[in-house]
Amino acid sequence: MTTRRLTDRLGGLAFGGDYNPEQWDEEVWKQDDELMRRAGVNLATVGVFSWALLEPEEGRYDFAWLDAHLDRLHTNGVAVDLATPTASPPPWFTLAHPDALPVGPDGTRLTHGSRDTYCLAAPAYRDAARGLASVLAERYGDHPAVVLWHVHNEYVTLCWCDRTAAAFRVWLRARHGSLDALNEAWGTAFWSQRYTSWEQVLPPRATQWHKNPGQALDFRRFWSDETLAAYREQRDAIRAHSDRPVTTNLMLPGYQNLDLWDFGREVDLVSIDHYPTAPGVDAAADTAFGADRARSFAGGAPWLLMEQGTNTVYAGDRTLGKEPGEILRHSLGHIARGSEGALFFQWRQSRAGAETWHSAMVPHAGPDSRTFREVARTGAAVGRLGELAGSTVRAEVAVLHDSDAWWALDVDGLPSAELDYHAALRRAHRALWDAGVTTDFAHPEQELGRYRLVVAPALFLLSDAGAVNLRRYVEGGGTLFVQHATGYVDDRLHARLGGYPAAPLREALGIRVEEYRPLRREERITLSDGSHATAWSESLRAEGAETIASYTHGLLAGTPALTRHSFGAGQGWYLSARLDDTDHAALVARLLDATGVRPELPGLPPGVEAVTRHAADGRRWHVVMNHGAEPAQLPQPLHDLLTDGPVSALPPGGCAVLRAR
Amino acid sequence: MTTRRLTDRLGGLAFGGDYNPEQWDEEVWKQDDELMRRAGVNLATVGVFSWALLEPEEGRYDFAWLDAHLDRLHTNGVAVDLATPTASPPPWFTLAHPDALPVGPDGTRLTHGSRDTYCLAAPAYRDAARGLASVLAERYGDHPAVVLWHVHNEYVTLCWCDRTAAAFRVWLRARHGSLDALNEAWGTAFWSQRYTSWEQVLPPRATQWHKNPGQALDFRRFWSDETLAAYREQRDAIRAHSDRPVTTNLMLPGYQNLDLWDFGREVDLVSIDHYPTAPGVDAAADTAFGADRARSFAGGAPWLLMEQGTNTVYAGDRTLGKEPGEILRHSLGHIARGSEGALFFQWRQSRAGAETWHSAMVPHAGPDSRTFREVARTGAAVGRLGELAGSTVRAEVAVLHDSDAWWALDVDGLPSAELDYHAALRRAHRALWDAGVTTDFAHPEQELGRYRLVVAPALFLLSDAGAVNLRRYVEGGGTLFVQHATGYVDDRLHARLGGYPAAPLREALGIRVEEYRPLRREERITLSDGSHATAWSESLRAEGAETIASYTHGLLAGTPALTRHSFGAGQGWYLSARLDDTDHAALVARLLDATGVRPELPGLPPGVEAVTRHAADGRRWHVVMNHGAEPAQLPQPLHDLLTDGPVSALPPGGCAVLRAR
Amino acid sequence: MTTRRLTDRLGGLAFGGDYNPEQWDEEVWKQDDELMRRAGVNLATVGVFSWALLEPEEGRYDFAWLDAHLDRLHTNGVAVDLATPTASPPPWFTLAHPDALPVGPDGTRLTHGSRDTYCLAAPAYRDAARGLASVLAERYGDHPAVVLWHVHNEYVTLCWCDRTAAAFRVWLRARHGSLDALNEAWGTAFWSQRYTSWEQVLPPRATQWHKNPGQALDFRRFWSDETLAAYREQRDAIRAHSDRPVTTNLMLPGYQNLDLWDFGREVDLVSIDHYPTAPGVDAAADTAFGADRARSFAGGAPWLLMEQGTNTVYAGDRTLGKEPGEILRHSLGHIARGSEGALFFQWRQSRAGAETWHSAMVPHAGPDSRTFREVARTGAAVGRLGELAGSTVRAEVAVLHDSDAWWALDVDGLPSAELDYHAALRRAHRALWDAGVTTDFAHPEQELGRYRLVVAPALFLLSDAGAVNLRRYVEGGGTLFVQHATGYVDDRLHARLGGYPAAPLREALGIRVEEYRPLRREERITLSDGSHATAWSESLRAEGAETIASYTHGLLAGTPALTRHSFGAGQGWYLSARLDDTDHAALVARLLDATGVRPELPGLPPGVEAVTRHAADGRRWHVVMNHGAEPAQLPQPLHDLLTDGPVSALPPGGCAVLRAR
Repeated sequence: MTTRRLTDRLGGLAFGGDYNPEQWDEEVWKQDDELMRRAGVNLATVGVFSWALLEPEEGRYDFAWLDAHLDRLHTNGVAVDLATPTASPPPWFTLAHPDALPVGPDGTRLTHGSRDTYCLAAPAYRDAARGLASVLAERYGDHPAVVLWHVHNEYVTLCWCDRTAAAFRVWLRARHGSLDALNEAWGTAFWSQRYTSWEQVLPPRATQWHKNPGQALDFRRFWSDETLAAYREQRDAIRAHSDRPVTTNLMLPGYQNLDLWDFGREVDLVSIDHYPTAPGVDAAADTAFGADRARSFAGGAPWLLMEQGTNTVYAGDRTLGKEPGEILRHSLGHIARGSEGALFFQWRQSRAGAETWHSAMVPHAGPDSRTFREVARTGAAVGRLGELAGSTVRAEVAVLHDSDAWWALDVDGLPSAELDYHAALRRAHRALWDAGVTTDFAHPEQELGRYRLVVAPALFLLSDAGAVNLRRYVEGGGTLFVQHATGYVDDRLHARLGGYPAAPLREALGIRVEEYRPLRREERITLSDGSHATAWSESLRAEGAETIASYTHGLLAGTPALTRHSFGAGQGWYLSARLDDTDHAALVARLLDATGVRPELPGLPPGVEAVTRHAADGRRWHVVMNHGAEPAQLPQPLHDLLTDGPVSALPPGGCAVLRAR
Repeated sequence: MTTRRLTDRLGGLAFGGDYNPEQWDEEVWKQDDELMRRAGVNLATVGVFSWALLEPEEGRYDFAWLDAHLDRLHTNGVAVDLATPTASPPPWFTLAHPDALPVGPDGTRLTHGSRDTYCLAAPAYRDAARGLASVLAERYGDHPAVVLWHVHNEYVTLCWCDRTAAAFRVWLRARHGSLDALNEAWGTAFWSQRYTSWEQVLPPRATQWHKNPGQALDFRRFWSDETLAAYREQRDAIRAHSDRPVTTNLMLPGYQNLDLWDFGREVDLVSIDHYPTAPGVDAAADTAFGADRARSFAGGAPWLLMEQGTNTVYAGDRTLGKEPGEILRHSLGHIARGSEGALFFQWRQSRAGAETWHSAMVPHAGPDSRTFREVARTGAAVGRLGELAGSTVRAEVAVLHDSDAWWALDVDGLPSAELDYHAALRRAHRALWDAGVTTDFAHPEQELGRYRLVVAPALFLLSDAGAVNLRRYVEGGGTLFVQHATGYVDDRLHARLGGYPAAPLREALGIRVEEYRPLRREERITLSDGSHATAWSESLRAEGAETIASYTHGLLAGTPALTRHSFGAGQGWYLSARLDDTDHAALVARLLDATGVRPELPGLPPGVEAVTRHAADGRRWHVVMNHGAEPAQLPQPLHDLLTDGPVSALPPGGCAVLRAR
Repeated sequence: MTTRRLTDRLGGLAFGGDYNPEQWDEEVWKQDDELMRRAGVNLATVGVFSWALLEPEEGRYDFAWLDAHLDRLHTNGVAVDLATPTASPPPWFTLAHPDALPVGPDGTRLTHGSRDTYCLAAPAYRDAARGLASVLAERYGDHPAVVLWHVHNEYVTLCWCDRTAAAFRVWLRARHGSLDALNEAWGTAFWSQRYTSWEQVLPPRATQWHKNPGQALDFRRFWSDETLAAYREQRDAIRAHSDRPVTTNLMLPGYQNLDLWDFGREVDLVSIDHYPTAPGVDAAADTAFGADRARSFAGGAPWLLMEQGTNTVYAGDRTLGKEPGEILRHSLGHIARGSEGALFFQWRQSRAGAETWHSAMVPHAGPDSRTFREVARTGAAVGRLGELAGSTVRAEVAVLHDSDAWWALDVDGLPSAELDYHAALRRAHRALWDAGVTTDFAHPEQELGRYRLVVAPALFLLSDAGAVNLRRYVEGGGTLFVQHATGYVDDRLHARLGGYPAAPLREALGIRVEEYRPLRREERITLSDGSHATAWSESLRAEGAETIASYTHGLLAGTPALTRHSFGAGQGWYLSARLDDTDHAALVARLLDATGVRPELPGLPPGVEAVTRHAADGRRWHVVMNHGAEPAQLPQPLHDLLTDGPVSALPPGGCAVLRAR
């Protein structure tokens, strides 16, 4: 069961979005049919928030309305991504199962009136969710409109209730085997936390001081596994009745409640929701970051952009609109990096309710609007890209990415609040994006031999296996670029003794970190090569490595800041401080140069992004987007699928999908 | 029953304040009598916090102490505004009625040790409050000292408890009639929120994501109505025994838990508490803002400043003192705009308790103090203004003001946190105040024909009736100045489709808003006329309107920013961005000029405020206050009531009440 | 029972730290033995977090492991400070005694998974704690290794539960005698808070508005007394079995849940934990501040630095490392001011658990590290200072310090958030430290005659006895320097009437404060002598005092800002605004000059700190630390204990302990 089947069924890439007809009436449905045709919509996600309609009272189902919508869509040539509506139980569920509501770490029980009012670990909720998936699949498993199953929506709800505590204990028993092992793993000898019976073990609820970090990390792992189990139950219930592929839309970026590598293995098709948090070129970089992560979680296979906004950039306390052309550019940005289409939340902007002001394909203003015109233009463009279906993306550089490492930087009592995993990951990716290079994300324990360069930012937690793997990678000829605060702890959050990082990595890098020395807020230091750094520094000993740049002031004056080590057939670089962005970019460029990594479509001016998709039969397409304010000359004229003609230059904001020769 | 009776009984304007003799002993009472005479006090508010004394245990009343104080005050020539003490139940009430304590949205139950420890919707509390009002009125309804009833104190307490939930359901049934109507109004089709029984409906308690906005708005409306019902019960209990007017002191500004138009209709005399939040000229503008609102809620009738501070400006994390003369200027600022006197909280600064540091007429330092001398000077001044009693204020400009619109901007999920209703209201009023023009506030659905200019800032919610009313106003010859983000939703928070604002208003303005485009934080744009704007912009189409200024950059370049439309006999202006203060002031000045609105006492230099009170018989008085640092020449010498002589100039900080010729 | 016995038993000053061998295995223990010898460790604190090991289930004790460690340490020449492990109940305690968990003011019940999971007022906890102390003392009371008892750890846990409420009522009955007295003290006449039965009285839990300040202050006092009672119970249980001195490590600075004067009287040896919050010279000043407080709480007797960090400065959201030499300088900074040694938390940096990143004597990197080398160097230095044991420190200046005054500035409803007691205390101490003068802290009611100069910063609360005491001090020839906002309330938080401060102090100062006038945020004013001030000003009348500097602007122009009054044989100075640091330092220097207070080792350049310890037999030692960046010449060459030779200059960062001639 592969995504290939999805594009086959659609006859091309997917274009469309979440469709919630239950918010509207028959007259609007008719207009929808017409507008979907005008916009080139071929896929609609239906039923995400329909529990209350589908099961108006416990055990009584009403399918008639859904039958009608599916038939109408099918007749109109729109395929359906059918959702299980389990992300939003109706109010009756609260009253029937008050013990299945989510509870905060301080004991506050949340209630309905919003969405996601459930505890994923509560048996009553799980039974209900599995039951819904089963009845839906039974009824619609072979419906001709249905081409994809959409389990749940954005699994990000947490809980600390007693049901959760019970499930956590089951998970801990399986992980640790014995209380002794748990006590050892969590370091409960400190602060007198030794557990002497399983029933004493709780989720990390409100405490007076720092919580036990091992408990906090295991709770994150448990919750990811518990969520995965909930997903699997629905998936398996669907598979019993349907051969269509099953996915769940993963929430990117900024949420990290799940191990997305795990999810990538359990879905038939990775799909993500992606909303940028800054406008302009930052949104484009953010798009690439999200898309590269999605492709990586999919193991390099094609994936699907399930949700984006037509006119929404979430910028803190406001939502900014998009600039002209961004709907198309962002859509192509995802497709360039492996998405088999571009979908939106949602088709029609809500007239009422919590997301009235979330943008949509048909805005409040109606079809006579810039937004709808750009949507239709984008739909037409996507419609011309059918030949890309099934092609993939290649990268020679990887950034290491591990949920454990992320969670490890979320515990209490760390040396600095500036150890921000997500920010470090984005920074590393951004430097590579600015250099025009396509980047994969990779797990520290996976085979890395295919990459010329591997970057490890803020990998605070690194397992024994990961450390050995990285040493093997360098030894085998790879270039590894490790950044500060990496490898300080093992997978139980136990500190590495005798100097950081873990010994195998020290060997590959030829260094030993004796002391971490966070910089003062606002402090900015200068290295011997004139570069600048903030936030962090380390007292480092070269043990075989060559010093490329050293510290110049204070305790660390004259000691190494940036080192390079030849080890086996490869090289290990270590950067012990957080370089300023431009200095960091210059260093990354140097490493790319040293490793011979080049853009696949070289010769483009700055601000022009190009990514290449490769078909199994050798065909290639360059997706090119000009994010700059100046026209950009292409290195050579090529055939553009969007205009079906040759293109040799792109205006500001312009895009092309070029058939490579 | 009118306020006229109050000033008749007092023989002039009111002067005095809250008097809490239970905090002091007999020796102090004697001094109080003497000092009140020296200060010209003729009205004291008694009993606001006396529940614990009046009813020391449930059902047992002690009136002796109150009898004595009322008699003493009466003997001393001080009339009494007698309060029902229901704003602060005593500790025994907590233990007797734990289910009547207020509960937060997260379930935290508050307790005594402060004040306002009750749920207004709890039957036990309501019974107790009504009972207290009744016994007080029965005993003191005809007491010769009592000239006014003061129900409760500053109704601003909210609650989310189960008692509240029950009352909310009763209110919702009455408003919506059926669950189907409620589901339609709240847009529960979205996020699977459909209610299938009334008992599922809750107040908007803690949820994980955005709360349903319709539920949030209805909860605000319900709570205002519930509060009004609680007020009415007390009022009616009093009326059964007393013919004195009844009021409740409304808390201004910054609190918006009540629909103050509704309260204005149910009290015999509007009274407000007013504390500025910034010093100097800002405090004067704030005073005018509060006073104009109070007069408007009173339907133009005289009203009463029930509380102000003698030496307190609440400036965030500190209280600033007032400057010399401000006690008088602020008092006159209220009287100028229709207050029938000037009262303070409180007579004597508390020696202990939560408000030890709240200023008073007699400060800790005692009568030999600047504060008390200024109080006495102010009392003498107010004493000379008896002839103003019953006169009123006239305005040719109105700013639209609607609680629904305020509440509509308090819900989750709006496009920008900079849509601040209160700030927009103050800004509009301030520009008019700076121009020397007296301003009314008006409800969008009320008859507006009397105004030459009507300003509508941030009226995000506008009902169908309101939109029709505004169109009628313009058509009939009025000039309407609508500012950005107005009329986006109807009174159920349903978005206006086909372009904002509501269709009748679009017609009057000759424009259609296609897209809202919040600006980035710190972003500042320039319009074609050189003015600047921040926070917000809109993609606007002129549909009949003339473009006065247009955008100059980005997506909106060349499109209209400020428009004017001739419609019927009037004009509709639309401003789609938030202008800088000076540009906004210039635009307002242009509109005043265009509509022929002029100060009633023209020719005054900037920084000199003048307001005119009009008697029914044609007499007029100009209250003039020089807030500037320079002496101010008056246009002509007039007789000043304060000095009982002619005045032709005011020193910095000086005031006069001039008999107009 | 005195600390003398401790240094006698140790044969010199103490050096070592918290030792938690239960986190490690036998191999590490062996290395510990060797490294402790290398580092000169002679005292280890054992058992602080060992409840779970000592009492693995309720009532079953396991001493074997502790026996072994004590014997091993003893054999290795390391004495033991044996702790009762009551600061961290094990998880089983939560399940056995859920009613003994701590509860926040909003009702949130905290749980285990961290430390300090108990309510100090819960009988079940108190019984358990007393029992543990008793069994430990019974078993180890005469153990040859044990030289000191360490009750609990950092008593800073608060609680608002029903057990606390019950204990609070008992305390209130004892303090106030009757409900009438309590009502009078708390000013319950205001806001209708009168209590009519004891069961109505609660801890200050969540309320809607300002809490009653008297209740808040009494709750702080109660909690300090309750904590002291808990300490005493353990101490007495220990004394029944052991003649070793008993202490509890007090948490400095920034915590103020305890009246440390009271604790100073109940411990056999004052001991403190001290962690600076800023690097560099600020850390040195902070060290002096903490050490002077500790010595003062000890009544001038020797005391002990129980905890410091080797490489940790807590700077908000990060921990900064120390600079080279600071481990020694900070240790000497404490010893200079009376500490009988220098101990650390902890011996070996944790490999896991909540404080993995808290620095230690043996860091993660191991003994081959800068940190361990500096530790060993410091141990060697401390080892050479045996002759200082028992010597004391003399001061001619005192800063007044009162928990009541601190707590008085923590209540709701004060005129300004900038009335920060702790900051004011530090500022006063810092100005004296910068001037090279050794400072005591003193209680306002204690005999002050021995001091030439007494400084009173932010003593908002001043009891009648305190006011009389200060008047007596001035009258008797002292110089008293009182700063703004002092003496506004008495010990019941009742405002002083007729002008602040309390009358006896007004007499001594020859002034009367009529009005407080907080300055606006960011406002900075100029006084007539050119000095500047922020945050606060006062309207002051000179009543006998001479004006030294006056205000220059606004309402206060021309009125006194700084005054001096000759009263009896002394002088009272009053400063009514918060001077800028440099102006404040200049004024303090002027006062030191006027009172003839000089450094004990004069002639040192700025940045060089010197403190003198005095033996009973007249011997003296100057502990000198150069915090500056330049070499510092000493006034004369003296014999340095650290190098056992003459020293005439100190390099940057250098230290010496000079035998005075």
